[in-house]
Amino acid sequence: MVITAYLDQKREEVDRFLDSVVPDARTPPTTLHESIRYSLFAGGKRVRPILAIAAAEAVGTPTKAILPIASSLELIHTYSLIHDDLPAMDNDDYRRGKPTNHKVYGEAMAILAGDALLTLAFDLCSRRDLLDGLDPLRQVQIIHELAVGAGNLGMVGGQVLDIQSENKDIDLATLQNIHTHKTGMLIRAAVRMGAIAASATPAQLERLTSYAEDVGLAFQIADDVLNVTGTREQLGKNANTDAQRGKKTYPTFYGVEGARTLAEQCTNRAISRLETFDAKADPLRELAKYITARKN
Amino acid sequence: MVITAYLDQKREEVDRFLDSVVPDARTPPTTLHESIRYSLFAGGKRVRPILAIAAAEAVGTPTKAILPIASSLELIHTYSLIHDDLPAMDNDDYRRGKPTNHKVYGEAMAILAGDALLTLAFDLCSRRDLLDGLDPLRQVQIIHELAVGAGNLGMVGGQVLDIQSENKDIDLATLQNIHTHKTGMLIRAAVRMGAIAASATPAQLERLTSYAEDVGLAFQIADDVLNVTGTREQLGKNANTDAQRGKKTYPTFYGVEGARTLAEQCTNRAISRLETFDAKADPLRELAKYITARKN
Repeated sequence: MVITAYLDQKREEVDRFLDSVVPDARTPPTTLHESIRYSLFAGGKRVRPILAIAAAEAVGTPTKAILPIASSLELIHTYSLIHDDLPAMDNDDYRRGKPTNHKVYGEAMAILAGDALLTLAFDLCSRRDLLDGLDPLRQVQIIHELAVGAGNLGMVGGQVLDIQSENKDIDLATLQNIHTHKTGMLIRAAVRMGAIAASATPAQLERLTSYAEDVGLAFQIADDVLNVTGTREQLGKNANTDAQRGKKTYPTFYGVEGARTLAEQCTNRAISRLETFDAKADPLRELAKYITARKN
Repeated sequence: MVITAYLDQKREEVDRFLDSVVPDARTPPTTLHESIRYSLFAGGKRVRPILAIAAAEAVGTPTKAILPIASSLELIHTYSLIHDDLPAMDNDDYRRGKPTNHKVYGEAMAILAGDALLTLAFDLCSRRDLLDGLDPLRQVQIIHELAVGAGNLGMVGGQVLDIQSENKDIDLATLQNIHTHKTGMLIRAAVRMGAIAASATPAQLERLTSYAEDVGLAFQIADDVLNVTGTREQLGKNANTDAQRGKKTYPTFYGVEGARTLAEQCTNRAISRLETFDAKADPLRELAKYITARKN
């Protein structure tokens, strides 16, 4: 299979779906919706939704419900970027080649756009009109996965550890702890949400969870490497910011080449978790490779 | 019935429950959980959870599920206060007689504590271990009520309108629009969530929704009046801040006495919505009166 064609197709499906459910910029409060759309449609790769879709495909039960479920992950991801970029947090001026949300709409609106996106993710996952084919108990479980992955013991917890570690001499265990939570837990939720939507068996869910944990780690190591090796043009945001901020990353501990090797090992381990799955899991296998090899 | 005894008892139940489900300050990330607890246990009146509990009682089907459902509303309410108090928003230094969250923990942690509380509300509502007696379809509906009430077309939308209206010469319709969303929609969600948890009939739900809309308006008018007439000691925050900020409120349009009369009319209308309910709706009736007569 050609992963780039697969990614393009799924990304378009997710974008079209998000465009259909997120209020347009003429819906009051207009500035809020304009601000939400500014960040939501800024060219994101939709990695988390596509992981959810590919996990459902691997299980093999296609379901109409997967698109709303998958897209909710992008609402969470976008909110986290808007809040992370705020002056009180990472104070970033650029994201995906454009000024950050608060640079355009101001801090108050950026905070509220993030709050609204976070809430909208749960709004979307709890709709019955779009998800009437989904067993309600599975729907509740999916919502719970999203909340756990995004919350105090998941993504938000990781962001707390991250800001507390800036300019500190952290060890490798702390770095791993940050990444497991900040990036890993939402990627884990993405794969599990897709699998649960597709009625995965407990054994399938367990294997897919291990896959997700390996992929999450590979993703973050690759991100750290890109921060060192990428250009501003490739990344759409300033490059080499980690070193400037005195932030310890995988390249700090392993060097760039060592970190690359580590990411590849994670990718291979992720793929090996899928050995009991047939060709319907090929998108997941290719996604694991893409995540390490990507250039932005 | 004696409403103060009822309020005390329910508030203690909600507090005890929240204390049991929110991680303690020794759970990593410790500062996040300390910051969450600082604002969550600052002496809130728990009006929204108690409205949910009283609505369930009015329907007459007691359910163990009501406490988690009701308490989730306080997680949303607390997050909204933390974010509203931020320097980029209302820039308030005091809340419930204590320094605001960002004054103690810094802006970054206050933003993240709010994000975590918002997410935790949906975590709580989507738990099956605590809510195994609840029909999953009703659980999904309850989660959806919470998301709609708190989100872009609910509470967050109202907060956007509110910050956009500061120092502007808004008319009465705009003021009502702000309040319907900022305060009204979450109070409406509270009553509806309680009613749905207690398996309300469509007719019961409709009447309780009208009750909630009237109570929500009474609540906000009473809040506006208190901002003018209350002291810093009574309110636990600075008094008369609306006038200082050039904010138009119900007393601006109706005068203090006129606004008081309007709040009482809303209260009476709310109570009249309950005429088909028996004595089990007395807590709702007394709550409507309390909300207008309260001194903080």
